[in-house]
Order: sequence, then structure tokens, then C-alpha cells
Amino acid sequence: MIKVSVMYPNKPGVRFDHEYYRTKHLPLIKSRMRAALKYYTIDKGLADREGMPLSPYVAMCHLLCDSVEEYQSSFGPHAKEIREDIPNFTDATSIHQISEVVVENSAKVETAALQRSPIDRVRRHKTGPRRSAP
Amino acid sequence: MIKVSVMYPNKPGVRFDHEYYRTKHLPLIKSRMRAALKYYTIDKGLADREGMPLSPYVAMCHLLCDSVEEYQSSFGPHAKEIREDIPNFTDATSIHQISEVVVENSAKVETAALQRSPIDRVRRHKTGPRRSAP
Repeated sequence: MIKVSVMYPNKPGVRFDHEYYRTKHLPLIKSRMRAALKYYTIDKGLADREGMPLSPYVAMCHLLCDSVEEYQSSFGPHAKEIREDIPNFTDATSIHQISEVVVENSAKVETAALQRSPIDRVRRHKTGPRRSAP
Repeated sequence: MIKVSVMYPNKPGVRFDHEYYRTKHLPLIKSRMRAALKYYTIDKGLADREGMPLSPYVAMCHLLCDSVEEYQSSFGPHAKEIREDIPNFTDATSIHQISEVVVENSAKVETAALQRSPIDRVRRHKTGPRRSAP
């Protein structure tokens, strides 16, 4: 699994409409990438009480796909449309990171490890493949 | 919920032991923060075929906690010990981001929304509070 992280650098007076990002922009990406986008996450950089940024990025999203190829083939044909939506929520220029997901969710790893006990493996061998942990 | 993102900038010849990071450093953090750390994720920045970095960060981890206060009170007392482990896997200096989690997992949101159908809400009203989606 791979993760495409899109990060919007903070700067004094940066414009970023978090509501639009959550309710319009990410749903647009999801509607275009469809099943190739397994799921996404959205982060909002924290600010102090005066609204001054405490974080290097004002916002980030992370897109989870099975492979770089899946990402490119599903995002690529819609890249122009998605890019043209960006001025609707920010004047920041994003930075992109593509990562291999080493640990997707440490709590899920623990759960999955418990479910893969030797006894369970014997059962699986007898009854055929089982579904992965939810 | 908040997310503390720790990002290690890429540079030519950067040293980063991803195996140590996954099997020693993050488990050390988990063992010190205990239940205050809901879960963590680990990302490994992709490189090209010659091993040249394609991503601004060689590695990232994201620590999920209920609040900034929970993070500070559980991480703070062990910060020195955790910091002293860093030279064991990298010579990079990390950047930190603290974010509000706006969408933790879009697939879970969809699942939770389906589970909160009007019929379900009536049932919940009759039988008392129900547990949140897994």
C-alpha cells in the first residue's frame, strides 16, 4: 500500500478554507479516483490562541492506494480538474510525498497478529483463505 | 483527536534505518506513552531505481492521541530517552507538526454514516448508547 501526502505549507496570512477542503475538494478527488482510492485522511495544522500557526503545514491530506500505478492511473486523467479546484480553498502551493506504508495502523497490526495465531492458521488451511482483519 | 507528525527531511546520503525505526523506535514510543497513544502509522519515502529520493521526507510517523494534553503528559516525561534513541537510526533532524484530525479515515466515516441510519438512531434511543464504529 502507498500513501500520497499532500502538504500545504504555512505562511503568515495564508488562506485556507478547511470547510471547503473537507466537504468539496476531497470528495471531488474521491469521486474521480473511485475504488482506486482506498481511503483518505485530513489533518488541520493547529494554531495558537492568536491564530498564529504552530505547525509547518496549514493542512495535509493523505491518499491511500494499493500501488503507485493505481494512484497514477486513477488520479492522472483528472489531475487538471482537481488542480483547477485548488484556488477555491487556498493560495498555498502544496508539497507532495509518495511513501510506502510500513505500518498502516499499529492497533490493527496488533489485532491482526492476534488473529493469526497458529491454531487459526491450521483452521485457515483446512477451510481455505480467510478475509484479512477489518 | 490529534495527530503528531514527525517528518525526517530527505537529503543526499541521508542515513535512515527503516528496520530499526519500525522494530525498535516506534515500539519504544508506544511502550512509554502506553494507552495515551491510540495508534501510530509509519511511512517510508519512496526512492527511484537508483535510490535517489523522490520525496521530501525519507520517513514519517504519525502519533494519534485524544488531545494535545494527553500527548504532552505521556510523551513529555520520556522525551529525553526517546530523543537519545534517534542517532541509532538516523542523522536527519526531524520536523514536527501537530494537527487536528479532521477526517481520520474516510472509509470509516462512510461506514459510521451507514450505521447511523434513522432506524438505527431509533433503536439506539430505545436501548441506550451504543459503541462507536470500530
